Amino acid sequence: VEYTDRIGYLSLVGTGPGSLDQITPAAKAALSQADAVIGYSLYVDLIRPLLRPGQIVEAWPITQEQQRAERAIALAHWGLNVAVISSGDCGIYAMAGLVLETLQAQGWDGQTPTVTSYPGISALQAAAARVGAPLMHDFCAISLSDLLTPWPVIEKRLQAAAEADFVIALYNPKSQKRTEQIAIAQRLVLQYRSPETPVAIVQSAYRPTETIVLTTLTDLLHHSIDMLTTVIIGNRTTQAYAGKMITPRGYSL
Amino acid sequence: VEYTDRIGYLSLVGTGPGSLDQITPAAKAALSQADAVIGYSLYVDLIRPLLRPGQIVEAWPITQEQQRAERAIALAHWGLNVAVISSGDCGIYAMAGLVLETLQAQGWDGQTPTVTSYPGISALQAAAARVGAPLMHDFCAISLSDLLTPWPVIEKRLQAAAEADFVIALYNPKSQKRTEQIAIAQRLVLQYRSPETPVAIVQSAYRPTETIVLTTLTDLLHHSIDMLTTVIIGNRTTQAYAGKMITPRGYSL
Repeated sequence: VEYTDRIGYLSLVGTGPGSLDQITPAAKAALSQADAVIGYSLYVDLIRPLLRPGQIVEAWPITQEQQRAERAIALAHWGLNVAVISSGDCGIYAMAGLVLETLQAQGWDGQTPTVTSYPGISALQAAAARVGAPLMHDFCAISLSDLLTPWPVIEKRLQAAAEADFVIALYNPKSQKRTEQIAIAQRLVLQYRSPETPVAIVQSAYRPTETIVLTTLTDLLHHSIDMLTTVIIGNRTTQAYAGKMITPRGYSL
Repeated sequence: VEYTDRIGYLSLVGTGPGSLDQITPAAKAALSQADAVIGYSLYVDLIRPLLRPGQIVEAWPITQEQQRAERAIALAHWGLNVAVISSGDCGIYAMAGLVLETLQAQGWDGQTPTVTSYPGISALQAAAARVGAPLMHDFCAISLSDLLTPWPVIEKRLQAAAEADFVIALYNPKSQKRTEQIAIAQRLVLQYRSPETPVAIVQSAYRPTETIVLTTLTDLLHHSIDMLTTVIIGNRTTQAYAGKMITPRGYSL
């Protein structure tokens, strides 16, 4: 038996917020060229119309990110072209880093397999686009999940971002088990911003179940928030007007 | 003479980093359906292959953002379908906010014209994808341009972001006239992070002239930086490995 020395290929693909017309052509091409597609089952389902017969499709449970990364690398070492998908941008709180971390731990030479990232529209951007233009000035993204980050680190970031007047996008604001963090975040930001500060709560942007709520910092907790929600808190100049959230691009000088 | 009551339409379109295969199908459709396309001339040139005969195409100089917004709104009031383009994401430091601000100043009713945003791959994401996976943990975007923002506000944000260990993406790091800010930013961040902190300097991502430099915080100023550059400064855990910049997704607990 003779084997071809085929160099494996890993595509780290961001599939955007969930609507197929929000996926870049580059990401779509990476998916269609892949021999194998690996991802969390919910995200695989969203892009299933883009897959073709003959592809290996592995839809995994949500908690097994490390196993997914290892499996993808193993398939690539067999010489396959493997696409690892994340919803949103694979490069923002998603699988791209974990795959690279795992390659590093295995002593990767940077070339075998070849790794390419395909950015996608992130939850942050999708939420912003659907609610107006909140990200016109300096902003930050903070995940409220303390699964892998000590809570004091998160709290320090909330405090710093609130005090320095960043527009703040909260990822993973709340889960069934984790309900207190969003309330603490609200209290921290209220120390520096008006109770009337506009806040957007966007669930499942660009999906059929999308909901968009434009509320205020003081009323934030009266609305439904879950793991599929992105919360955007305006800065001191952000306004709500005609159902839109608008952060002016400049400070009046 | 009888006029149809045609409701104008404004599409705020993010055209991504400059490569046509990084533009979402939704954004492409908005461009092709537009009666008029308005934008900064450099960005209009990048998407010119997507335009079709019969469209009004207005390529404007870089400094006239306010006039561009007013012109787009005027054309929409005539009943046209008008696309206002920004490179990257129109919702991040770009035209979406200025158009909405201008509509607000004119007493817009929220519906006439109808306004829809089409997000695009931002400079931040393009740079991150090309250099590895630096945005795996909380991050912020800070523009170093003090044209519309007092410098003390920017400095305060740099300080807060550095101290609270955000990954920091710098927009507008340097121009021909404005060369000191990036040096001040470097000094501020060095107060809180190691000189060896990985820093990515990405120019014209996804364009034929793309350059990607992976360096360190202490060597940042030895490389070419201009207005088309995005600088990404790692957090305390970010590593450089095999030419990639990798921020671990978790803190070791």
